[in-house]
Amino acid sequence: MRVDRLSLDISRCLESSGAERGVTTKMMADLKPRLDKALSAVLAASGAGMLGWANLPREDPGPYLDFAAAESGKHDCLVVIGIGGSALGTTALATALLPFYWNELDPTQRRQRPRLYVLDNVDPDETSALLERLDLKRTLVNVISKSGTTAESMAGYLIVRERLQATVGAAAVKDHLVFTTDPVDGVLRAHGAATGVRMLDLPSGVGGRFSVLSAVGLLPAALLGVDVAALLAGARDMADTISGTKSWENPACSFAGIQYLEDTVLGRRVSVMMPYSARLRDVSDWFRQLWAESLGKAVDRRGRPAHVGPLPVKALGVTDQHSQLQLYAEGPDDKVITFLGVGEFAETVRIPALGSLGSDPGDPLRYLAGHTLADLLWAEQRATAWALAQLGRPSLTLRLPRVDAFSVGALLYLFQMATAIAGELYDVNAFDQPGVELSKKATYALMGRPGYEALAEEITGRG
Amino acid sequence: MRVDRLSLDISRCLESSGAERGVTTKMMADLKPRLDKALSAVLAASGAGMLGWANLPREDPGPYLDFAAAESGKHDCLVVIGIGGSALGTTALATALLPFYWNELDPTQRRQRPRLYVLDNVDPDETSALLERLDLKRTLVNVISKSGTTAESMAGYLIVRERLQATVGAAAVKDHLVFTTDPVDGVLRAHGAATGVRMLDLPSGVGGRFSVLSAVGLLPAALLGVDVAALLAGARDMADTISGTKSWENPACSFAGIQYLEDTVLGRRVSVMMPYSARLRDVSDWFRQLWAESLGKAVDRRGRPAHVGPLPVKALGVTDQHSQLQLYAEGPDDKVITFLGVGEFAETVRIPALGSLGSDPGDPLRYLAGHTLADLLWAEQRATAWALAQLGRPSLTLRLPRVDAFSVGALLYLFQMATAIAGELYDVNAFDQPGVELSKKATYALMGRPGYEALAEEITGRG
Repeated sequence: MRVDRLSLDISRCLESSGAERGVTTKMMADLKPRLDKALSAVLAASGAGMLGWANLPREDPGPYLDFAAAESGKHDCLVVIGIGGSALGTTALATALLPFYWNELDPTQRRQRPRLYVLDNVDPDETSALLERLDLKRTLVNVISKSGTTAESMAGYLIVRERLQATVGAAAVKDHLVFTTDPVDGVLRAHGAATGVRMLDLPSGVGGRFSVLSAVGLLPAALLGVDVAALLAGARDMADTISGTKSWENPACSFAGIQYLEDTVLGRRVSVMMPYSARLRDVSDWFRQLWAESLGKAVDRRGRPAHVGPLPVKALGVTDQHSQLQLYAEGPDDKVITFLGVGEFAETVRIPALGSLGSDPGDPLRYLAGHTLADLLWAEQRATAWALAQLGRPSLTLRLPRVDAFSVGALLYLFQMATAIAGELYDVNAFDQPGVELSKKATYALMGRPGYEALAEEITGRG
Repeated sequence: MRVDRLSLDISRCLESSGAERGVTTKMMADLKPRLDKALSAVLAASGAGMLGWANLPREDPGPYLDFAAAESGKHDCLVVIGIGGSALGTTALATALLPFYWNELDPTQRRQRPRLYVLDNVDPDETSALLERLDLKRTLVNVISKSGTTAESMAGYLIVRERLQATVGAAAVKDHLVFTTDPVDGVLRAHGAATGVRMLDLPSGVGGRFSVLSAVGLLPAALLGVDVAALLAGARDMADTISGTKSWENPACSFAGIQYLEDTVLGRRVSVMMPYSARLRDVSDWFRQLWAESLGKAVDRRGRPAHVGPLPVKALGVTDQHSQLQLYAEGPDDKVITFLGVGEFAETVRIPALGSLGSDPGDPLRYLAGHTLADLLWAEQRATAWALAQLGRPSLTLRLPRVDAFSVGALLYLFQMATAIAGELYDVNAFDQPGVELSKKATYALMGRPGYEALAEEITGRG
């Protein structure tokens, strides 16, 4: 029987399975009541409508599909202007669910869907090159900012809009724009209303890093032809699993619980996310924000100093076996690795014998012949997990049946719920990011924003 | 006067500049004799020809330029098949020194240079998509493996070669291949000789992660039109600086010394590399292998247990301010951040006023108008370093005058020398990677390679 759901294997973290410095039965038993309490708290907050993101899988994707249908065939390029959570989810979905080399394909291969450009930086050379790439008459620009005051995204928008206006004329600019922003408040909402730009809601209770299943991620996905209904169905299926399973049997609790014990009890502060699938490479990058911003906090929920937060690290199998594995195997024992494994690939690629290709290499390569690339990938994943275990280094394995919209929806939702549960365990507010405020203010000061003159003097040492 | 060389600013790590838990004058004075000794040891080994990579900047780039000239105009695609050090350097150079969106540009915009595909994984779907992308009649394949036994690269080669043979015919295959491999030994050298494939040398004393300035990195760079002479000139200039400057005045010593003190004395085990330049994003990925594989070691040079090695982390400014900065600012104080700053960009992109574009946003955005994107990028970099310092978090800043071949050559060479010096400080062999052997053997076993039957039984639990 085909396994059609995600499964999490924590055995290589457990002392009972022979792991050195492993999670013990007692640690798990001790944590069980807290896990149950954490799960209940998250489900209760979600049920009370306090976690807007948690209920997104039950929203109707109709508006995104309708918008995409209405725009179908009109655009050769889609530019998403956003940063952090407004960009990472879209990038993760595109890498996972679009054909490889998407932007290089011709329109037929793209089924008339647009190329995708995510502008999530303010590098002048990159931005300038992007402007050169775009046929603005055939470009749709999706600006994503809750408040409309995100400096980077708004700078990008102002620049692109000026160019649009010069190319298509002031009257037509609005046909090339769609804003994803706060339903009521903010600069972007007001500006959009004043200029007739179409807008989608970024609802309250949906922070940037929890927004991938809202209009933030789903509008671009729909425009690109991703099956957003299947994404949501996968997330709903995972939501049902999570709400219907207790403590260590629950994948979100289990993931959060093991990571928490590894960090706080066993001193493994680094959490490596290492998919053995090129399609999932940017899911790691999305997870990296989710985990770091949610759990990296100076104070706990009662305001006491904490300075907690595991360090999420992005890696890729097999590639990073030739870059990071040496350190993971022999360096400090302060890492826990999560392998993302894929049960089946869309394509079968067989390795031929070298002998048939012109010269016989002798033994060193003969063992490869006849295997598929998937055989090699799976063998390397399994070998790496086994070798690390021999060296006393723990790992988890999260298996996806395949990389499709349903599985990816389930995976993203699982990580979001695991993050909320981990927030309960660490006893921090998983939904704010106060630590970036000082740097934002300092930027305002250095850019000469009125009201920040004193800070500018402090930073520059003049005054 | 224009600053034309790299400069390293360590002040935000120093207690004397107000850093909390900073590097003290005494720590620096205590380390000074060891730094001088480390530098002498590295320079002596280099002078005695024992560090092949260290002398690469003085090699003649003629062969690469000649090869590239002879192939000029023949190929629309260049496929580099290699993994780890055989891939990361080429990717770093391409991202830094080619126009953005290179593979999407038309041949004229690419000045008739080929598209670049670096195959450094064995994902079946990705590999299959790559094969679909290639016009093999107009493709050159550069296979890079010192021994010719790297499973991933050889699997990729066998697959691509079979497809080549079917497309261009057996006799013409060799015109589409070039191997970079051991000058004398190994499977690939023998196979190339037997089948008439052109070959370039990967000289002894040049390990994968130190190979970017050898044929490994320079042949693809030359084929893509990168100014390899300027790359080498920049590296030579840095080599002269390093050999002519002592201890803390020496940028390689200073970088290595601060990182070493932060890790081993101050307990900051994580080293974040965060360029504020999209062009330099993959330099961080290249550095990540260099630092991790060189310093992450189980034993010291006398064989005593060590389990040392800082964790290199890749980040990107300003993008990761919206992903990782929260954790860096408020989480555990176990990180030191290296900012890579760029003095001038090629393009000037000015931010217009929103008022001129259809609606007046009021104050929240007005401060942006009239500034350039570079102003914003620089302000954010400076603001982030300042804000982190206010929170007691240390950083270094490495400034490049601009991102060009000369500066990038200097930067890569600086990091290589700093790594060798850090190896001396940690007292580990910076040039081996014994920790990956067990995983390699386990892969052989699981793939059914003869001679590994017992290990296969051990891993699978059968036998």
